[in-house]
Amino acid sequence: MAVPGQIASDSSAKPMRAARFYGKEDIQIKDDISRPVCGEGQVKVEPAFVGICGTDLHEYLGGPNFSPTEPHPVTKEKIPITIGHEFSGTVKEIGKNVSGFKIGDQVVVQPTVYCASCGACKVGAENACAAGGFVGLSGAGGGMSEEVVMPQISVLPLPSNVNLDVGALVEPLAVAWHAVDASPIADMKEPKCLVMGGGPIGLAVIQVLLARGTKVVICSEVAKKRQDFAKDFGAHYIVDPSSEDVVQRSLDICGGVNGPDIVFDCAGVPASVKASCTAVRSRGTVINVAIFEKEIPFNPMWLTFREATYKSVLGYQRKDYEGVLDALSKGTIKPAGMITGKIKMQDLVKEGYMPLINEKDKHVKILVDIQASM
Amino acid sequence: MAVPGQIASDSSAKPMRAARFYGKEDIQIKDDISRPVCGEGQVKVEPAFVGICGTDLHEYLGGPNFSPTEPHPVTKEKIPITIGHEFSGTVKEIGKNVSGFKIGDQVVVQPTVYCASCGACKVGAENACAAGGFVGLSGAGGGMSEEVVMPQISVLPLPSNVNLDVGALVEPLAVAWHAVDASPIADMKEPKCLVMGGGPIGLAVIQVLLARGTKVVICSEVAKKRQDFAKDFGAHYIVDPSSEDVVQRSLDICGGVNGPDIVFDCAGVPASVKASCTAVRSRGTVINVAIFEKEIPFNPMWLTFREATYKSVLGYQRKDYEGVLDALSKGTIKPAGMITGKIKMQDLVKEGYMPLINEKDKHVKILVDIQASM
Ligand SMILES: [Zn+2]
Ligand SMILES: [Zn+2]
Ligand SMILES: [Zn+2]
Ligand SMILES: [Zn+2]
Repeated sequence: MAVPGQIASDSSAKPMRAARFYGKEDIQIKDDISRPVCGEGQVKVEPAFVGICGTDLHEYLGGPNFSPTEPHPVTKEKIPITIGHEFSGTVKEIGKNVSGFKIGDQVVVQPTVYCASCGACKVGAENACAAGGFVGLSGAGGGMSEEVVMPQISVLPLPSNVNLDVGALVEPLAVAWHAVDASPIADMKEPKCLVMGGGPIGLAVIQVLLARGTKVVICSEVAKKRQDFAKDFGAHYIVDPSSEDVVQRSLDICGGVNGPDIVFDCAGVPASVKASCTAVRSRGTVINVAIFEKEIPFNPMWLTFREATYKSVLGYQRKDYEGVLDALSKGTIKPAGMITGKIKMQDLVKEGYMPLINEKDKHVKILVDIQASM
Repeated sequence: MAVPGQIASDSSAKPMRAARFYGKEDIQIKDDISRPVCGEGQVKVEPAFVGICGTDLHEYLGGPNFSPTEPHPVTKEKIPITIGHEFSGTVKEIGKNVSGFKIGDQVVVQPTVYCASCGACKVGAENACAAGGFVGLSGAGGGMSEEVVMPQISVLPLPSNVNLDVGALVEPLAVAWHAVDASPIADMKEPKCLVMGGGPIGLAVIQVLLARGTKVVICSEVAKKRQDFAKDFGAHYIVDPSSEDVVQRSLDICGGVNGPDIVFDCAGVPASVKASCTAVRSRGTVINVAIFEKEIPFNPMWLTFREATYKSVLGYQRKDYEGVLDALSKGTIKPAGMITGKIKMQDLVKEGYMPLINEKDKHVKILVDIQASM
């Protein structure tokens, strides 16, 4: 039972409350959900705080896209499924052959599920598993419930100086950590970086870059509110692509001869792709962190003329969770300002999804307080 | 006078013969071209064999594209210009402060010209110089003439066991060497490679991969004749994308779990880009060697789903010429079979350009024999 995503449930136990995704614009809070069984090698976690992310909104507005409508190859579940993949909690039960945990430990959960046998899994890239998914998006429970069972490898202790609400931010920060780790930053002396987009992932990338000592971080963002967030989180330069030429401005900031060494595209629109590929310095690297729904116009010559590299990353691995938790423990990342709201599960759509959809510039992360919802 | 591309000419000397590009479908053999002066740090070369390449055809059919219509930033010349950038020759004159050459030495010429001050040049990527060009395409003379003057750094001795006609193949082989060198092949134990396209550059990549010990080289090519060339040059597997699924076939050849470690796109059409990006293994690398004239449909998710890297390369550097010359000297590359015709300068268009345009599958390289043309 070591592969995340395979859990049993106990239909004889008292059922529990959970937020369930049924399909487009259909989320229901249910009180009749079977409790998961804490098997060998597994840990039962009582969720504390759960972040709502762009993927959740996306499923709600136009899904099911990512959510399985046929039994998921790993979790064997299909919609309706419990939601919430960005969460912290406390240990409630410990399965056989589990070490290093005690009841009441504050933890964060790495929600990745994977098959362990595909090409990606075979080369240690289980985050890109062909059959992969996430607890809270692909079945196997989710954070927006009274309890969730995870293999011990997916449960990581929260440092004692970090609060449970901040613990719910580890997931988006791990996305950023993974992206930064996939870049050549470790091999560079004084890398200059450009971050396209100041949404939750862009802000997370800015924080991770700063935690890793980057001296020049430029953020390109249109929305005024997000520009302010980017500044607050420490971006050294803000460029507004609606009124400035990002390529020229970032070249100037970098000294006028070469552009940024690394560009992180966290915006994921045709204009950000072109700007990323043409702003990066000769032999520089573009890291794509964004998700695209369809083909975009692209000219490989944008890269050719500077012999640049374009690399696309996906999700995160345990090492990224460990990196973020270490940075939080040391205080080199202080992400509490990303939390722009806390709500109850009962108000999930009205006070969570809707403000994130309709006033997205005002918000970074809205958390669901699970204990306040029971 | 160390920067390639800046030469003087001697209008008092007896003029010489050269093939000149005037514009679309207009190439003229002239006998009134000023001879170049062999200045300090320079070597005068008498061209022996000159290859005709796709770029030449492209200029002829739809140009001037690459050829300067305003004074080129480095060479200060504009059309009409002397053509021929893939050539071998013998040393005819040696300028002051030049060492390591004697009259009559057989040599190859690296035609790159660059500015030495732009961002690319500053990071040692003068092959991607923003103002860069090529002798034979951008002014400063060319191989299809009685003599050409180059800085000594751009003239490399041909190994004694390599013929002058094969010397004219060093340029396209250097493109391939550069592409292979830019890939992570050196870090890999038993890399499996897929080459998209069996034209001159695809065939050159196949040869370089084999010279570097690659045990699995797959070539995807539609044209029957080119498939045969690819086989002759040692490709282990041939896939025909008009009747087979390149992605599935290369996955099968590579063992069924992961696709090729490295894919070289030498075809440069929308289908080859998509196939390259979706055939490559998890965390694998696509090297784009092709030239694109316009934007193509592209989905970054092709790369995301395998966390793959897409890297675009351009031209070559001196190290690539050295690598090819070393391999030729050792016999690990035997490219003579690429020469599918030898013609006189006077027949350049009729017997060179036209067969390459109209019967391109039959030909790899047609060489102009300069000494036979005088
Ligand atoms: Zn998320
Ligand atoms: Zn897998
Ligand atoms: Zn060429
Ligand atoms: Zn330059």
